[in-house]
Amino acid sequence: MKPLEQLQKSLKIPLFIEEPQSINYLFDINVSAGSALISSNEVKLYLDPRYFEFYRHLPFVELLPEQIPFPEVVGVDSSFTTLDRLASLKKLHPQTVWEGLSKPIETLRLIKTEEEKRKLRKAGALNSLGHDFLLSLLKEGVEESELARKLHLFFIEKGGEAFSFEPIIAFGASSAIPHYRAGSSKLKKGDLVLLDHGVKVDGYHSDMTRTVFFGAPHAELEKIYHIVQQAQEKALAAVKPKISSIDLDNVARSLINEAGYGAQFVHSLGHGIGLDIHENPFLRNREPSALIKENMAITIEPGIYIPNLGGVRIEDAVIVTAEGYEDLTNRSKSLKVIPC
Amino acid sequence: MKPLEQLQKSLKIPLFIEEPQSINYLFDINVSAGSALISSNEVKLYLDPRYFEFYRHLPFVELLPEQIPFPEVVGVDSSFTTLDRLASLKKLHPQTVWEGLSKPIETLRLIKTEEEKRKLRKAGALNSLGHDFLLSLLKEGVEESELARKLHLFFIEKGGEAFSFEPIIAFGASSAIPHYRAGSSKLKKGDLVLLDHGVKVDGYHSDMTRTVFFGAPHAELEKIYHIVQQAQEKALAAVKPKISSIDLDNVARSLINEAGYGAQFVHSLGHGIGLDIHENPFLRNREPSALIKENMAITIEPGIYIPNLGGVRIEDAVIVTAEGYEDLTNRSKSLKVIPC
Repeated sequence: MKPLEQLQKSLKIPLFIEEPQSINYLFDINVSAGSALISSNEVKLYLDPRYFEFYRHLPFVELLPEQIPFPEVVGVDSSFTTLDRLASLKKLHPQTVWEGLSKPIETLRLIKTEEEKRKLRKAGALNSLGHDFLLSLLKEGVEESELARKLHLFFIEKGGEAFSFEPIIAFGASSAIPHYRAGSSKLKKGDLVLLDHGVKVDGYHSDMTRTVFFGAPHAELEKIYHIVQQAQEKALAAVKPKISSIDLDNVARSLINEAGYGAQFVHSLGHGIGLDIHENPFLRNREPSALIKENMAITIEPGIYIPNLGGVRIEDAVIVTAEGYEDLTNRSKSLKVIPC
Repeated sequence: MKPLEQLQKSLKIPLFIEEPQSINYLFDINVSAGSALISSNEVKLYLDPRYFEFYRHLPFVELLPEQIPFPEVVGVDSSFTTLDRLASLKKLHPQTVWEGLSKPIETLRLIKTEEEKRKLRKAGALNSLGHDFLLSLLKEGVEESELARKLHLFFIEKGGEAFSFEPIIAFGASSAIPHYRAGSSKLKKGDLVLLDHGVKVDGYHSDMTRTVFFGAPHAELEKIYHIVQQAQEKALAAVKPKISSIDLDNVARSLINEAGYGAQFVHSLGHGIGLDIHENPFLRNREPSALIKENMAITIEPGIYIPNLGGVRIEDAVIVTAEGYEDLTNRSKSLKVIPC
């Protein structure tokens, strides 16, 4: 069943949706503004004149009127509707009762359709090719920001739409800063190299991280590499329907804790991925917990960061299957030393 | 005075800000998540461990605690805070009184600082170079989507961060669809060519549109070209402090109305531009009206669209000055025929 039909089946009152990403998801279109009024037996998508011309051939599309004919009780998506927007709706339509519904679309988006999975695979495959390309560019003196720019061009040339996020390309001690980006550092012998990047293809995101050694590894960094690798592989092995997000996070976190680096694993295990680069479910070591289900798409990305020395993170994006997971990244995680 | 100081001066109660664009604007940083508690005499920016490491050298940065020490009364930005977020804040902090403040940051962002103006000029200049590049590629048989991809590569190579939006590259009758993008049409002799694109540089956007003729113009399209050009130039001539957004829109709209094409000018005159590609002030022919002020950055972009024939839009981005405006686009608007 399509997401829109699923939504309709679940609705007890008509739902008013204005968040563009939700509109594009439900109607498989591409607009930056629109207003949908959806009930169990009727669907209207109101578009302003700029978009109306383009989509008027769709049976549910109408030109946005001065006043939308709202029924008596209308649900709004309380995860996107702002306080100002609700106030303005109330002012414009004082007869209507507005009821907040939490995450009606986000809940649907958790479970990827076959078409979404195809797009996620495509994005993941291009991202992994970009990773191979980056590895081929590692040589002494190359600058982080130069790698970022070349990766960007590579993605666009190969049909990517855009970076999923500003890539993190960190040499040496900068790798210890989980949200570093790409700066002016030049690659030196002995540097650890952390590469975290994603590309958007057909509206869907990808995300992967590898950490490689440019020359002989520092002993402690080699040690944490193996711990992170074990934690990542153990968490991946635990990915399957019905595990909770907290339990999944804990598979990796307890291993890292026991190795004595718990305080250096400063972020959550991973996140959902799809139309947004970070979306539900979030794999955190705290409530609210989410139950992992078949056809969710998630990242598994433990890391250990030692300030002023270096950090290691290994990340794959996967689709949850009935028995385990499908790997969207498909690249080795063995410790890799780039000769220099 | 810096925006943060201006904000502090205007505050009657402490303000809690979580919207990433607002955080980045106020603190001149680059994060995807953060929580700021700002009062007239104190500023705290709470960052999670991923970002904390990177920004801990800044005096106002603290590691995000389990519980933020909120005072008794706190303002939230009601233009960004969702119903769900307010509900969760209320649940977590039942002692605190939460008060919605409308657009505290958006109001500041209306007026561009000297540094913002430098970034807008840089983005505008690169965008105009991209336009020149596109014109050089117009030849029989070239595909819309090929032009889009080449423009993208051009921008990245020249130091742009990303497209400001998916560019509109429309040949022939597709130009009559204001929000067309770039498809598989190939350029033919006699086609009208509408080029609407922008590039983000240092976080700031650019936006321009030109419509050119590939071969001898169709008589009615030539006619509407001159009407749109006059409307655009007349509106630009009216840009100065103290005119209202409705009056400014009306300068162009009344000229197009009088020429008999009012119903074919299906969108507003323009929009603010800055950290967002579309931001306040919006130049619409309806309330709420905004007063144009010095150092606002806006686009002026009237258009006439004749379904199944073609559309003409001409757009410049400008900064409002004490006496008029500074052109960020700097390209001719005379009717241009590309020889073919």
